[in-house]
Amino acid sequence: MTYPIFSDEYFMNEALKEARKAFEQDEVPVGAIVVSNQRIIARGFNMTEQLGDVTAHAEMIALTSASNFLGSKYLDECSLYVTLEPCLMCGSALKWAQLGRLAFGASDEKAGYHLVESPVLHPRTKISFGILEEECGKLLKEFFRMKRV
Amino acid sequence: MTYPIFSDEYFMNEALKEARKAFEQDEVPVGAIVVSNQRIIARGFNMTEQLGDVTAHAEMIALTSASNFLGSKYLDECSLYVTLEPCLMCGSALKWAQLGRLAFGASDEKAGYHLVESPVLHPRTKISFGILEEECGKLLKEFFRMKRV
Repeated sequence: MTYPIFSDEYFMNEALKEARKAFEQDEVPVGAIVVSNQRIIARGFNMTEQLGDVTAHAEMIALTSASNFLGSKYLDECSLYVTLEPCLMCGSALKWAQLGRLAFGASDEKAGYHLVESPVLHPRTKISFGILEEECGKLLKEFFRMKRV
Repeated sequence: MTYPIFSDEYFMNEALKEARKAFEQDEVPVGAIVVSNQRIIARGFNMTEQLGDVTAHAEMIALTSASNFLGSKYLDECSLYVTLEPCLMCGSALKWAQLGRLAFGASDEKAGYHLVESPVLHPRTKISFGILEEECGKLLKEFFRMKRV
């Protein structure tokens, strides 16, 4: 499947490639990328198991990497694409970074930041969701189905 | 000032030493340590400016370091001492780590995790606060007073 270049689906498909790397490494398959001026400046996938570190979520890795690339701790001109809705830790990190735009695929009904009633993201962060939702969710379901066998 | 060994004040004083390192490096002065079996296994201080990374809070650095030391992403047998109440990002990270006990000094009325009504920490995490509160808060006030001049 190909998507029009620079479309949300195009970029989410890149985040999905990261999620598949996590899957192959037996990590909960979540992937993220950071885009600045239509250019992918950072990539990350969940590495909590191999690093033995709960903070090693895809978004945190991509965020740190993007800040390193830009030489700035603020990402107000950037978009972060992530295959799963960020948790409270990642949502709050994105707030500190004053992220320009968050785009996520599948919703997380167990640990997503939306479960908290107070606003978690920065008031200026634009939000889109449901992008390639089915593919993003399918990868997660397949992972947990395998784990249960 | 000396404190009885292994008391909360003793350990918070060690976290304060970390906060003072941040102060000297022109970072918002917050320090943290992780204690396991009365032994300090990790230390961290806020490095957001020098790393240009919003995720480099004292707690995050100490948490990652403690997990590396123990070879475990779970810190259910550990106590984390931090001079300032954790923010939502750090509080949520401590939840993922299933932290045994959180002890903080000063409260954070602007960005502390308590501002969110939903429970942020893990239900099994014990909480203490107000330990060396005055010293912890004084360091922060001094820092921001200097910044305003």
